[in-house]
Amino acid sequence: MYNTSYNIIVHHPAQMYNIYRGFFWRTLMKICGIVAEYNPFHNGHAYHCAKTRGQIGDETAIVAVMSGNFVQRGDFAIVDKYRRAAMAVCAGVDLVIELPLPAALSSAEGFARGAVASLAAMGCVTHLSFGSECGDLARIRRAAACDRSAIREHLASGQSYAAALQSAVETVDPDAGALLSSPNNTLGIEYCAAIDALGCDIQPITVQRDGAAHDSEQLHVRPSASALRHLILDGKVDACREGMPSEAFTWLTQAIDSGAAPAHVGVCDAAMLSYLRRLSPDDLLRFTGGKDGLQNRLFDAIRDHTSIPDICAAAQTRRYPLARIRRALLRAYLDLPFDTSVEPRYLRVLAIGPRGREVLRQMGKTAQVPVVIKPVNEKRLPDTADLRRDALVDDLYALAQPSRAFWTGGSHFRQSPYVTNKENRSV
Amino acid sequence: MYNTSYNIIVHHPAQMYNIYRGFFWRTLMKICGIVAEYNPFHNGHAYHCAKTRGQIGDETAIVAVMSGNFVQRGDFAIVDKYRRAAMAVCAGVDLVIELPLPAALSSAEGFARGAVASLAAMGCVTHLSFGSECGDLARIRRAAACDRSAIREHLASGQSYAAALQSAVETVDPDAGALLSSPNNTLGIEYCAAIDALGCDIQPITVQRDGAAHDSEQLHVRPSASALRHLILDGKVDACREGMPSEAFTWLTQAIDSGAAPAHVGVCDAAMLSYLRRLSPDDLLRFTGGKDGLQNRLFDAIRDHTSIPDICAAAQTRRYPLARIRRALLRAYLDLPFDTSVEPRYLRVLAIGPRGREVLRQMGKTAQVPVVIKPVNEKRLPDTADLRRDALVDDLYALAQPSRAFWTGGSHFRQSPYVTNKENRSV
Repeated sequence: MYNTSYNIIVHHPAQMYNIYRGFFWRTLMKICGIVAEYNPFHNGHAYHCAKTRGQIGDETAIVAVMSGNFVQRGDFAIVDKYRRAAMAVCAGVDLVIELPLPAALSSAEGFARGAVASLAAMGCVTHLSFGSECGDLARIRRAAACDRSAIREHLASGQSYAAALQSAVETVDPDAGALLSSPNNTLGIEYCAAIDALGCDIQPITVQRDGAAHDSEQLHVRPSASALRHLILDGKVDACREGMPSEAFTWLTQAIDSGAAPAHVGVCDAAMLSYLRRLSPDDLLRFTGGKDGLQNRLFDAIRDHTSIPDICAAAQTRRYPLARIRRALLRAYLDLPFDTSVEPRYLRVLAIGPRGREVLRQMGKTAQVPVVIKPVNEKRLPDTADLRRDALVDDLYALAQPSRAFWTGGSHFRQSPYVTNKENRSV
Repeated sequence: MYNTSYNIIVHHPAQMYNIYRGFFWRTLMKICGIVAEYNPFHNGHAYHCAKTRGQIGDETAIVAVMSGNFVQRGDFAIVDKYRRAAMAVCAGVDLVIELPLPAALSSAEGFARGAVASLAAMGCVTHLSFGSECGDLARIRRAAACDRSAIREHLASGQSYAAALQSAVETVDPDAGALLSSPNNTLGIEYCAAIDALGCDIQPITVQRDGAAHDSEQLHVRPSASALRHLILDGKVDACREGMPSEAFTWLTQAIDSGAAPAHVGVCDAAMLSYLRRLSPDDLLRFTGGKDGLQNRLFDAIRDHTSIPDICAAAQTRRYPLARIRRALLRAYLDLPFDTSVEPRYLRVLAIGPRGREVLRQMGKTAQVPVVIKPVNEKRLPDTADLRRDALVDDLYALAQPSRAFWTGGSHFRQSPYVTNKENRSV
């Protein structure tokens, strides 16, 4: 499945010893993956880590596979990936790995597949923990076992992805369709389906969500990331304090005070328009993911309107949901065709927490793609289109930071992961 | 020289009558071309029109060939091309035609060649009037007759264009080299050389400059355009009143008050950087005009610096003069390769003054390329790369206007020329 020419096990002289040691180690230590955006990290995320350890053991190492500088809703992350990763390891996560960009800018299916493939590529992850509204793993797994080809058929008939998945799931479990009205259940189904499809030896577990609903505006001790983003963009950063672990809040305020955050699409409207206006409908078709005419609507909207939100509003219909349009525009701006593989070519380490070194040591033996910890290692990677794209995309993100002092390019080759050994479990 | 398939004379049934009428008309009316940027139009420009009429007759129609939205110093024009053209026809010019973009973003030689080719393509221009510091036409024409191939040799040996021209001119007229320390003399030499090279029947005349020096900061009743731009960018628009014809000043203040001006590179830094960072050194080479390593300096500067002025300052050396760097960056942003032809594929009319209609009527019979007056006519042009580029470039200019209300695209296909019949000779 992966290009294993970098697989350290295969090429290591003491291969059998390592396989033995790996097996031994697996019985001693559990490594649990979490897929997240941490945009920004809040109390609900810390609660998820704590509950995960509660279910599978307090010594479990938690590895987050986190969206980089661009997030699944088709937007710039509010704080850059290094700082968001640092927030996480200061509040209970042991290692943060970057989710490949094509996965971060995909629908739930591609997002989950890229994330599970990243965990699988580490070669040592034993569990995957995800939040869900229902908390019923067996039911989610049953729904995940539905016929994927049925989804394709429903999609082809013009249904949205969510509706297509619902129709397909209902044929397996008539009551399970209701699961899909909740976004975390949907993602959970996709994680389980990806584990099955990729045939990986990773055990899914679920933590029932107990905070504000995803995207909820309501404030709470465990608020939604969306509510926090609104507060931040409204300049009410202090109001976020209650909803975030204290060290994560400190990272956030320092980023804002220095002018590194908040980044958002509004700052980059002119930059995005100046690129998008160069693209013909045929160019746009490479990014929209479907020959259903969306490219023509986008082409007109890009000329007629003067901001990304206005373009989205003009192009949106029942047939073309907002998230798809936002992702298509961002994919076009980042020159990321829709058919780009979501699976990792290398694993970029963004932050290392208390037990992260141990996990990295293990990955040194089991990883199926190169692991990039220090930027100097990146130089050893072959100069691929993927690598150039990831470096460019970070340079484009830099231009969305409020202070020009952060606009310098080249961070992809310069920035080292944040490292801490301090245990700081917020919940 | 031109594609004459649009030449109305050739296809007209009453061909002989028209040739006769054209000949007759030429004896009656003089049409004098002026090459300008009018960035913005000031008293010196009005003085030039008045002196030109003083030399060749008060009834002379004056046609300005004017840079569009981007100007020769490698910058965005401070006010858009339609408003700058309107300023000109309110203050003594009879017709404003747009200089082809590749000429506007060329060194003096390409700029002059594109401008003279545009006047020649009108088919009815009798004179070309230019300002010069020396006011000595005979001497300028002697200098223009120098060996152009000698210039190429000096350029190849690493001299700047100005130095190469000076060396070549000095071999013809030992004293003439001194002419070239004055920028308007240099342009005058290039106009005369272009008239000779293109073999056109246009009579050059010169008006001695009597205002502040080009690029001078000193304020004056006839200030430099550069001094006015500095005042405008500093927010001291009222201080420009004395230096501009009153109607031109009204156009300027209305543009600023509505948020359509001032446009400048600073507003578009993020947009330019977000595009320039996508280009490899090989990509940049297409825009720098010389395999002398400038592309590598630019590539590094584009990553290391966070504004266009900083990038220019970092890349500039004695070998790579500032204007060349600014034009290379703007050419790259506008996707305008260095080897693009400077000659017009069509003539775009930007504004029509008192006698402009008469000139247009004449052009209807003599023009050697299509003349575009109303945008609807543009639709009749073949959908060429040139046309798409000119439309895109105006959409990119729109994004540099201060108010988002002016960011809408498509002006190239929507905007009609400003028309006035009011005689308003300011000087």
